[in-house]
Amino acid sequence: MSSIDAILERLALNEGQALDRLFDILRIPSISTMPEHARSCEKAAAWFFNAFSEMGFSAQIVATPGHPAVVAQYRNPDPDRPHIVYYGHYDVQPTDPIAAWTTDPFEPAIADSEHGPQIVARGAADDKGQVVAWMEAFRAHLAVDGCLPVHVTAIVEGEEETGSPHFEHVLYALGGDFHGDAAIISDGTMWDRSTASITTQLRGLVYLEVTVATASMDLHSGLFGGAVPNAAHCLCMLLANLIGTDGRIAVPGFYDDVKLPPAHILSAWKDLEFDEVRFLEAVGLTQVTGEHGYSLLERLWSRPTAEVNGIWGGFTGLGTKTVVPKNATAKVSFRLVPGQDPQKVVAGFRQFADEYLGPDCRAEIDVIEAAPAVELPSNNRWSCDAIAALGDEFGKPPLQIGCGGSLEAVNAIQHVLGIPTVLFSFGLDDDRVHGPNEKFDLACFRLAARSHARLLSRWTYREK
Amino acid sequence: MSSIDAILERLALNEGQALDRLFDILRIPSISTMPEHARSCEKAAAWFFNAFSEMGFSAQIVATPGHPAVVAQYRNPDPDRPHIVYYGHYDVQPTDPIAAWTTDPFEPAIADSEHGPQIVARGAADDKGQVVAWMEAFRAHLAVDGCLPVHVTAIVEGEEETGSPHFEHVLYALGGDFHGDAAIISDGTMWDRSTASITTQLRGLVYLEVTVATASMDLHSGLFGGAVPNAAHCLCMLLANLIGTDGRIAVPGFYDDVKLPPAHILSAWKDLEFDEVRFLEAVGLTQVTGEHGYSLLERLWSRPTAEVNGIWGGFTGLGTKTVVPKNATAKVSFRLVPGQDPQKVVAGFRQFADEYLGPDCRAEIDVIEAAPAVELPSNNRWSCDAIAALGDEFGKPPLQIGCGGSLEAVNAIQHVLGIPTVLFSFGLDDDRVHGPNEKFDLACFRLAARSHARLLSRWTYREK
Repeated sequence: MSSIDAILERLALNEGQALDRLFDILRIPSISTMPEHARSCEKAAAWFFNAFSEMGFSAQIVATPGHPAVVAQYRNPDPDRPHIVYYGHYDVQPTDPIAAWTTDPFEPAIADSEHGPQIVARGAADDKGQVVAWMEAFRAHLAVDGCLPVHVTAIVEGEEETGSPHFEHVLYALGGDFHGDAAIISDGTMWDRSTASITTQLRGLVYLEVTVATASMDLHSGLFGGAVPNAAHCLCMLLANLIGTDGRIAVPGFYDDVKLPPAHILSAWKDLEFDEVRFLEAVGLTQVTGEHGYSLLERLWSRPTAEVNGIWGGFTGLGTKTVVPKNATAKVSFRLVPGQDPQKVVAGFRQFADEYLGPDCRAEIDVIEAAPAVELPSNNRWSCDAIAALGDEFGKPPLQIGCGGSLEAVNAIQHVLGIPTVLFSFGLDDDRVHGPNEKFDLACFRLAARSHARLLSRWTYREK
Repeated sequence: MSSIDAILERLALNEGQALDRLFDILRIPSISTMPEHARSCEKAAAWFFNAFSEMGFSAQIVATPGHPAVVAQYRNPDPDRPHIVYYGHYDVQPTDPIAAWTTDPFEPAIADSEHGPQIVARGAADDKGQVVAWMEAFRAHLAVDGCLPVHVTAIVEGEEETGSPHFEHVLYALGGDFHGDAAIISDGTMWDRSTASITTQLRGLVYLEVTVATASMDLHSGLFGGAVPNAAHCLCMLLANLIGTDGRIAVPGFYDDVKLPPAHILSAWKDLEFDEVRFLEAVGLTQVTGEHGYSLLERLWSRPTAEVNGIWGGFTGLGTKTVVPKNATAKVSFRLVPGQDPQKVVAGFRQFADEYLGPDCRAEIDVIEAAPAVELPSNNRWSCDAIAALGDEFGKPPLQIGCGGSLEAVNAIQHVLGIPTVLFSFGLDDDRVHGPNEKFDLACFRLAARSHARLLSRWTYREK
């Protein structure tokens, strides 16, 4: 087998073509949350099917009740090699507010920045850019060595942004005799531009839509205003009272089962030299808000939260309409930490809303997503390999961090396949994922492909 | 001159054609608040220009920086006859939520109801139906007598629903030598199906748009949630705290200048047998809300209020998007009572918002409308004539009531022309004005035309 240097050289040589391939898939508007983009999701799945097939993988498209997933298998001639599951997703978030984009979200562009060139497009960092990075590592190994050092099952799904409702279904379709050794995921951020990280904890997510309804019709504020309930105002009161001025969430029993991270993890977080001022400055803020009594990192990684993700009701056009709205709706989500049961949180929110709202005012609650938090122990051999590979690439060991986000696939892999997941990612906090002008630093794309290539090389001589 | 009976007979005879004419103008979607309907507003103005011209009035279209108004003059051969200004508006409110309409809002239909036939269309009651009613009274007098008993200046404007920003301009265009004796307006409701009313007090209106802004970009709730301010939640807190649990409005100085209605008016309101249960039941409610310590009628007519007319921010599409919105906006309006200065209320709201919002959270306030309340004394001869005419038509004297709505034209007429306004209207509380399925009872249209015809007849022998 060749040295890692030859493989990294190959990666550098092929970077132009790699970017062409990435731009190709970035052009497909595979927004999974919007039904009108279902055809684009199929197109994105077909793109990955073709890309893996062309690389010599045995690919198939797995239909689900939602958007299809792509499953691509590579088998090393030696059946005793380790079997690694790679996971990523081709679906992306909506692009609104579209007016805030400086370029077409689905016409990728290279923009200059103080940090060097950046790939600007929806999905650049989350997650197409990171998936293409490990695919390019496969390509380089295949080109230089003619084979990969491990068996690979690569899964690229199309419903991560809607909470992966059918991902377990995709895993079950692998068959009862399927056996993997570990899963590798890159979907999120690293510590900073020069520091890698491995994630050991992910928050869960409950996402719901709550509609407050009052009168049987919209009313004229001149004829009724001041004597009847206003649904928009009732919703505001409900949401205002959901989070206390101390940042505590008023859902009954919300904190009952919260499990604190182990002391050594908390202590490791304390040792991280996290620059709060810079973190906030990057997004135009000056002060930490949220739950009193916890550090910023604890608030982000290990404390449960509530957010109003969207709100609408009444007249939202230009000018004036003197209406007392009969209903108003909000999208509300909770990030959960280990110990919390998503169903208990949903029930608690229902109770909170019912108890809070006055007469002639009722809440309808629609649960869109409900997933628990997950812990990712880092003391297994696969994590150790990843830590070593990242250490080689970055010149210093990666940090072990928590993550505020959620990744339903990790739960499903643990549940269905029963194998450890190693999660290390290459995005940055300023990537604007889910927002306008999402970008992925070209340097990050390069680090990602090189780190994955190094990890594969580490497995060249590793026994199963 | 003919007896009133001949004129009322003529009205009855021509009702089919009158409805054809009303339907004609109801078909024009003259929504003044939406720029894309500007051409329809011009069409509606042209329709009234033609209708008055055809009736022998000398009509003109008066351009304004916004939508045009129609001014139509009729001169009785006897220069010493009284000169009456009739006011109405051709513009209507938007139709959203359009899905809640059972028929096309701009394809008028006659629907059956327990109260007899109803004209269903946007603008049926507010205000096209009421304007066409007094025009039909003119037609009947002209047809039977060949003339009207008074000089008339009829003004139909196109910006009532946006606060009549250029109506003073229209009045000034009448010329410095213009002299009227009184203004007559029908734009609002009567007491109930069998009881007329004259309005002696109108609330003012401050309508503004407030945007709460936090971070410089939308943020990922997994990566930032729990440690940064959420603009949608900050807006909810601001609006929740705007109105206390006792229904009092927290704007500094809001109640300082509130003038209570005269004791005899308050006492007259107490004598009104107002059926609160029925009032609320009609719109699906069971309990009065709002400012503690005041009767329902006082809350509606003589107490200032605050309402959230619309709200929006963050992700409002289908499914999920885990965003922490960087801004959120609400339309907020205040109904003002005599004594309150609209500019002081705006300044107070600015102060309230600035003081309430925390760091990294700022409010941008855009004032769309600001008009004071107005009192309409009913002790002048023109009001007495109207009271007598309504008494003849309804078989009992009209009630003297307050009104929670606002009518900027009344302020402008008082200010520019310096003449009294007599305001009596024929809508009903269940007309759904500003909401879906707006309607005008055919019986109300008939009462309106007959009452106006009776009032004109009363002036046949009245000296100036």
